[in-house]
Amino acid sequence: MSGNSIGQNFVVTTFGESHGVALGCIIDGCPPGLELTVEDMQHDLDRRRPGTSRYTTARREADEVKILSGVFEGKTTGTSIGLLIENTDQRSQDYSDIKDTFRPGHADYTYQQKYGMRDYRGGGRSSARETAMRVAAGAVAKKYLKQVHGIEIHGYLAQLGPITADTVDLTQIEQNAFFFPDATKLEALDEYMRGLRKSGDSIGAKITVAAKGVPVGLGEPVFDRLDADIAHALMGINAVKGVEIGDGFGVVTQKGSEGRDLMSPEGFASNHAGGVLGGISSGQPVVAHIALKPTSSISVPGQSMTVQGDTVDMITKGRHDPCVGIRAVPIAEAMLAIVLMDHLLRHRAQNQDVVRHTPEIGMR
Amino acid sequence: MSGNSIGQNFVVTTFGESHGVALGCIIDGCPPGLELTVEDMQHDLDRRRPGTSRYTTARREADEVKILSGVFEGKTTGTSIGLLIENTDQRSQDYSDIKDTFRPGHADYTYQQKYGMRDYRGGGRSSARETAMRVAAGAVAKKYLKQVHGIEIHGYLAQLGPITADTVDLTQIEQNAFFFPDATKLEALDEYMRGLRKSGDSIGAKITVAAKGVPVGLGEPVFDRLDADIAHALMGINAVKGVEIGDGFGVVTQKGSEGRDLMSPEGFASNHAGGVLGGISSGQPVVAHIALKPTSSISVPGQSMTVQGDTVDMITKGRHDPCVGIRAVPIAEAMLAIVLMDHLLRHRAQNQDVVRHTPEIGMR
Amino acid sequence: MSGNSIGQNFVVTTFGESHGVALGCIIDGCPPGLELTVEDMQHDLDRRRPGTSRYTTARREADEVKILSGVFEGKTTGTSIGLLIENTDQRSQDYSDIKDTFRPGHADYTYQQKYGMRDYRGGGRSSARETAMRVAAGAVAKKYLKQVHGIEIHGYLAQLGPITADTVDLTQIEQNAFFFPDATKLEALDEYMRGLRKSGDSIGAKITVAAKGVPVGLGEPVFDRLDADIAHALMGINAVKGVEIGDGFGVVTQKGSEGRDLMSPEGFASNHAGGVLGGISSGQPVVAHIALKPTSSISVPGQSMTVQGDTVDMITKGRHDPCVGIRAVPIAEAMLAIVLMDHLLRHRAQNQDVVRHTPEIGMR
Amino acid sequence: MSGNSIGQNFVVTTFGESHGVALGCIIDGCPPGLELTVEDMQHDLDRRRPGTSRYTTARREADEVKILSGVFEGKTTGTSIGLLIENTDQRSQDYSDIKDTFRPGHADYTYQQKYGMRDYRGGGRSSARETAMRVAAGAVAKKYLKQVHGIEIHGYLAQLGPITADTVDLTQIEQNAFFFPDATKLEALDEYMRGLRKSGDSIGAKITVAAKGVPVGLGEPVFDRLDADIAHALMGINAVKGVEIGDGFGVVTQKGSEGRDLMSPEGFASNHAGGVLGGISSGQPVVAHIALKPTSSISVPGQSMTVQGDTVDMITKGRHDPCVGIRAVPIAEAMLAIVLMDHLLRHRAQNQDVVRHTPEIGMR
Repeated sequence: MSGNSIGQNFVVTTFGESHGVALGCIIDGCPPGLELTVEDMQHDLDRRRPGTSRYTTARREADEVKILSGVFEGKTTGTSIGLLIENTDQRSQDYSDIKDTFRPGHADYTYQQKYGMRDYRGGGRSSARETAMRVAAGAVAKKYLKQVHGIEIHGYLAQLGPITADTVDLTQIEQNAFFFPDATKLEALDEYMRGLRKSGDSIGAKITVAAKGVPVGLGEPVFDRLDADIAHALMGINAVKGVEIGDGFGVVTQKGSEGRDLMSPEGFASNHAGGVLGGISSGQPVVAHIALKPTSSISVPGQSMTVQGDTVDMITKGRHDPCVGIRAVPIAEAMLAIVLMDHLLRHRAQNQDVVRHTPEIGMR
Repeated sequence: MSGNSIGQNFVVTTFGESHGVALGCIIDGCPPGLELTVEDMQHDLDRRRPGTSRYTTARREADEVKILSGVFEGKTTGTSIGLLIENTDQRSQDYSDIKDTFRPGHADYTYQQKYGMRDYRGGGRSSARETAMRVAAGAVAKKYLKQVHGIEIHGYLAQLGPITADTVDLTQIEQNAFFFPDATKLEALDEYMRGLRKSGDSIGAKITVAAKGVPVGLGEPVFDRLDADIAHALMGINAVKGVEIGDGFGVVTQKGSEGRDLMSPEGFASNHAGGVLGGISSGQPVVAHIALKPTSSISVPGQSMTVQGDTVDMITKGRHDPCVGIRAVPIAEAMLAIVLMDHLLRHRAQNQDVVRHTPEIGMR
Repeated sequence: MSGNSIGQNFVVTTFGESHGVALGCIIDGCPPGLELTVEDMQHDLDRRRPGTSRYTTARREADEVKILSGVFEGKTTGTSIGLLIENTDQRSQDYSDIKDTFRPGHADYTYQQKYGMRDYRGGGRSSARETAMRVAAGAVAKKYLKQVHGIEIHGYLAQLGPITADTVDLTQIEQNAFFFPDATKLEALDEYMRGLRKSGDSIGAKITVAAKGVPVGLGEPVFDRLDADIAHALMGINAVKGVEIGDGFGVVTQKGSEGRDLMSPEGFASNHAGGVLGGISSGQPVVAHIALKPTSSISVPGQSMTVQGDTVDMITKGRHDPCVGIRAVPIAEAMLAIVLMDHLLRHRAQNQDVVRHTPEIGMR
Repeated sequence: MSGNSIGQNFVVTTFGESHGVALGCIIDGCPPGLELTVEDMQHDLDRRRPGTSRYTTARREADEVKILSGVFEGKTTGTSIGLLIENTDQRSQDYSDIKDTFRPGHADYTYQQKYGMRDYRGGGRSSARETAMRVAAGAVAKKYLKQVHGIEIHGYLAQLGPITADTVDLTQIEQNAFFFPDATKLEALDEYMRGLRKSGDSIGAKITVAAKGVPVGLGEPVFDRLDADIAHALMGINAVKGVEIGDGFGVVTQKGSEGRDLMSPEGFASNHAGGVLGGISSGQPVVAHIALKPTSSISVPGQSMTVQGDTVDMITKGRHDPCVGIRAVPIAEAMLAIVLMDHLLRHRAQNQDVVRHTPEIGMR
């Protein structure tokens, strides 16, 4: 496959540019018999879509998804599922000034060099708008995982610049525009974002995403370990520069006697490993963290150059998120869901005893 | 593919267990005409192999690699390359005590649950011994990258527990048994390791790996971005729990005005991005960091359970590395080389103008 | 990948059912810079589409293709190309009688058993209507192959039931509704088809498809030989039951002294091999033949059974082609184009000297 | 993957040249728990190996396979299985005369042009010797298919040049050196082969291969249909120029009323389809036929050319099979087994109700 597909047995392939006609994707390998409607996807699409709060870009897209195939009489048929979202609020004129200039910190330069040309409108294919289809496909995976296996996935903003969540109250996540699990920090967040917008700058973020109810046994050593494939999927989200599983970089200063999760028939005593041992899910929650860089689309001037090779001082106009990390929460959930779904199917292929929610040996 | 292969156009597939007959791999897709001898691989194999210093396991393996196919009259033929390393110093009796017990923090439990059985001798397939073949395959990629494209890869130990490299002097890396770039810390490292061995404990580490001379344009958006595939390859190394590209988790508290790499016809002013923009190499050095957990194979007792479901207090005997991070340096280099090689070939497939070391536009 | 994709570096993934909302496909890996408009695809779509002659089904579909992404300012960008054809003339009521009955010789029974359900309207995903997207994707490959490498592909109906082409005049192919290269047989064909329609029966056919100008060196031994991948692609066309390369089944009674193509610096003396030696293109025309079975959708009654397990005597109503072989000509061309395109890119990946139209050694 | 692998969930990757050190393969994706010894593979290897009758090449190879990994205490572990066969009877000096000359009808010319070089000893990688590993891997698939699902595969020589099997008595196949199912023709075959050897010529052949007990539902439309993947696997065998499923090219002159297999709750009334409908197995025997060309390695002189571009008259010395079709019987069986195994696992991935040997609906 050539870059626009992910997965082996549950394969998601996407197309579409920020300011093109439409975005779309094909889901190949979804098991038959799953009840599926556009509503199942629309909820997550709405969580990701722009224009819903003052903390995100002002671009207004309905992001209404259509199911074009693969569903009959309300259920998946086992054949390929075609999904489509039409673009409605492209304002390509906003981008005419970047036609000949490379925005620093953006993919403009690398796309131009790789392909010898680029669709410069809104970043074209490199725009985070492309991730809408991942969210739609991820919602299908989420539904299957939950309905058939009781696996639940949730993500939240763990840190926005200097502001960290001191407590994690999952019931708070959907109650605020930040997907933030610590309600005591909402005012600080609001204030920080106002300041940021005033200064025309942007800020990085850290997201945590986790899956509960994952059966033991998912992951294919040695290269397609569950954690390796999660790292692949999460690092593939726009602006992500780091991925951790479980304790992540915290292990660097850990001793073996501290970091191992002790076991007993009652279960694991801790979850430093983030639910993955030897690349295979352990039955504990799968936990990952990602770091998202601040967008380079800011109104603070910065040196850049033109396609013709001239130096320019550049300000990025247009409508942008001051913290791309916020809207990335549903994207991260979607990617984790897609990876788990793919590995569930891969595990089934090789192992007749499909899934061990109640391990034969050990933990109750 | 089913887990034991990596790559799409440069494909490496491995087999072999810690205490089996032999380890082996097949490299499929290596361009024809590359001069290749066992010496090209032996150097890196020797850097990884056990028993070379008092800081690593006492197991002694010559790790002599044999080329079984794909090379004729000293050059690769374009057909699949078969490589083999025979195991010579298996002491399987050392492991009989873990036959019925799951070592905490190890893959024993997850392999048993996934497959319903496991080769318990030395961890079987989950042993880091498997990575010897990755190092051999990576050496082939390294040679091609250097010879044909001038790409050079080096890795070093950036941190061992509490001890960090304050300066990075690449000439020091091969001068000490730690692959450490800061000679002023060697005594501290030695002392720390002695204390560790005395206490029977182990420690985590951080490794940096980088590639210089990478042409602009490698990486296939949107899922097979160069950074995503690097994350996949590095997270797939035993004990790795975190991967960073460029500034990594440092971006969380960065502002957009700080983190973007400004550009001019003279080049980029900085490399926060770690050589990747929009998933495509920018022509700057590709830089990644990984966190390796301390091995759980320690002589400090810890609670665990048996295959029969009984609780036990366990001490791991056998020969183990107190810091698995040290020997992981050549493994990380190998994985980066394999990913770059694969992406070089993938890029060539789609783009006739093979590789842009001197970009058409822009930087000199 | 999970069945709805073909290719490795030039990947085509399709979705859509006969009576669904739309058909679509994603082309991933098309090189950047190719001029592409809907007209480039529409010509072949029109050759395949139903309702254009009295010899094919009366269903009327405009088969107008839309480009949704991957093309900017008239040229491909190197990113994934989304294509869409909306269904307009679905008459699903025609098919309500097959909801509960398996048509003999059709995929109704196997889809039902495989997935536990099926979209019965017009055969759903198993309908030859799905091949419209293959034709569209094939047209993109055809254009690239011709424009960049001078490779030309043509197919024709070599035999329809008892009527064979005695002479092959390529200029005749597009002059008649049968894609038949022997103008002296057109009346016989017309008469035969009238008789067939009167009897309510259908007939098999043989198609020849060939590519000229193929450079030497395409094909990846040992499993992805060019001929093996052509066989895969052509056998994957609905109703195909046999594939031949070059002399095909004629080799069974050949002697080695008859069947080998003698060589000299002036070229090959013959082309028994059909342009492939050892799975690699030889520089001669690549020639393949396929056998297409008569459709089972006929008004001659035949025993079948219902989903409930009862025996029934069945007549297939609806609008059907009495010889599906006719419209399969552009499909076969498309599949050959897709395979050649994919192998061209795969060959490039591994070999720096891109393509040898003028072999270094040998033939002028 | 880059040509030397086949399968998606049951993946076989091979290496090795005719006169290299050894042949080997990796089987990735074999389910755990299968009892496996070298004897399981040796039987089929012995059926294929040279030097066992006067009708095949005089090269003597023990073809003793070693299991290097993936099997523990007599059972597969679910990890990758490494297999090795050492070459023992290479007489490379026999081939020094073809170093600079392309044998007509062989892969010498295309390998040279593709890769710019070639291992000329015995055809290197293009030699049928490579198929030994396919037979070994196929034997693993065969054992699993039979033991777990009751699927049995057998192949036979249906035609050798002008001599066809008039009756098919499966009990005869293993009773003669031809794998011929019609004992009344053995004398004629012997006589024919003697004449052939005297004349220094070779002859083509037709092989039939079939699988019984295949459950309904295997095959992934639309591109990875079971018949398409069988065609890929069989056309990928050295010297194969044609593949048929069921009635094959016989369908060209068939009418729909003749060719469809009528159905009733008692089963199908016939098997024109060869066990595949819409690319999915129907529960009937899967039947395929292949045409193998006569080897071009004959002592009848033929025009060729040298690497330097000179015309020569050439006689191929060395030890060769006058009918390569004979020894191809176990190879064809192996390839069919590998495809069925892969599709069994792929089907399992998507469908929880693993395999329907007793279809829910319909046939008893």
